[in-house]
Amino acid sequence: MSDSLPTVGILGGTGKEGSGLALRWAKNGYSLIIGSRTPERAAQAAEDLRAKVPGVNVRGADNADTAREADIVILTVPHEAQLATLEGLKDQLKGKVLVDATARVDWRKPKPPEGKAAARMAQDLLGPDVRVVSAFQNIPASALVRPETKLESDVLVCSDDPEARAEVVRLAEGAGMDAYEAGGLDNGIVVEGLTALIIIMNKRYKSNACGIRMTGVVK
Amino acid sequence: MSDSLPTVGILGGTGKEGSGLALRWAKNGYSLIIGSRTPERAAQAAEDLRAKVPGVNVRGADNADTAREADIVILTVPHEAQLATLEGLKDQLKGKVLVDATARVDWRKPKPPEGKAAARMAQDLLGPDVRVVSAFQNIPASALVRPETKLESDVLVCSDDPEARAEVVRLAEGAGMDAYEAGGLDNGIVVEGLTALIIIMNKRYKSNACGIRMTGVVK
Repeated sequence: MSDSLPTVGILGGTGKEGSGLALRWAKNGYSLIIGSRTPERAAQAAEDLRAKVPGVNVRGADNADTAREADIVILTVPHEAQLATLEGLKDQLKGKVLVDATARVDWRKPKPPEGKAAARMAQDLLGPDVRVVSAFQNIPASALVRPETKLESDVLVCSDDPEARAEVVRLAEGAGMDAYEAGGLDNGIVVEGLTALIIIMNKRYKSNACGIRMTGVVK
Repeated sequence: MSDSLPTVGILGGTGKEGSGLALRWAKNGYSLIIGSRTPERAAQAAEDLRAKVPGVNVRGADNADTAREADIVILTVPHEAQLATLEGLKDQLKGKVLVDATARVDWRKPKPPEGKAAARMAQDLLGPDVRVVSAFQNIPASALVRPETKLESDVLVCSDDPEARAEVVRLAEGAGMDAYEAGGLDNGIVVEGLTALIIIMNKRYKSNACGIRMTGVVK
């Protein structure tokens, strides 16, 4: 990766969260590859993004090409599809940073997930040649898609690789978010659990954009 | 409990977190009972509080008397002492709301706790006659003890009893904090995990008062 901005590949980039993130990076000058199981849907999502952000360098691809050709890869598929999606991408992801936004939470029946962090499962599956980072689980898609809205939710970034962690903090900041390093990959379970609490609070307080911000931190 | 402010009893009220909370309630007109295993230390803490907040209605007691005589009881003992402290107080706590601030986190080696929420363990021990609420795990003692400082950390309140949950939200607000209902008691595990992440971020960012605030919520 050169000093210029990395090309961001988004696996499941046609979904709400993925396309919301893509919009934010596009607005900030990043090149993008929108990945999907269905290349036609990816191409359509790329076209939609170009309509919103004229001049953006974006194209659609299947998930395998997206993983192979991007400098840094974001996973935003539904949690049920997380491991199956990654299973087929081990070779393409070798040597890369994979940012896993998976939260194992059922929005219809939200509760904190138990056991390992989703991103730890991804790391176990992909092996040591891929540097997995957990991030973006809590960013409300409803806010992402309104690019004029300043994002009020902070990104907590967990990874066992300090360099990858710092890189993803910069990437989140590059999309206009505040981001903080929050330790090792296993800590992702807390951020996933927060996703459950945020869904519960959205219901309780009739919101669709609950989130959390850090306080008391000076970077 | 009448319409007037409840008398708050704090088990382990001589510790940093407990005495910080006591100071906040005292400043806001609540009557207090400071509980300790050692009544002399509790009496001393009550005297210290009177020196800081002249006219406050506060006294020290052992934990059993504190549990029996307070309208609402807060547990702020070190996590290693949580269940042993409660074991001896089943009878005194009957019919009451117990607010458990326990986070099963070792500040020297912080990581998210696994298994049941600490407050769920308390509920299992105390049985259905006590309404356990999880709250206050994340409020930095370093901020609590400076009463002129507006608290920037929000309180997430979890309980299976909606009435008790709402009551503890009011109690936190009565101490000058913003507080939110965050669902059932099992969700406390997420708030405990946040305590671990906050300790990690305190270290990473050289702070002693990291915390979280909710965004996107209108109450």
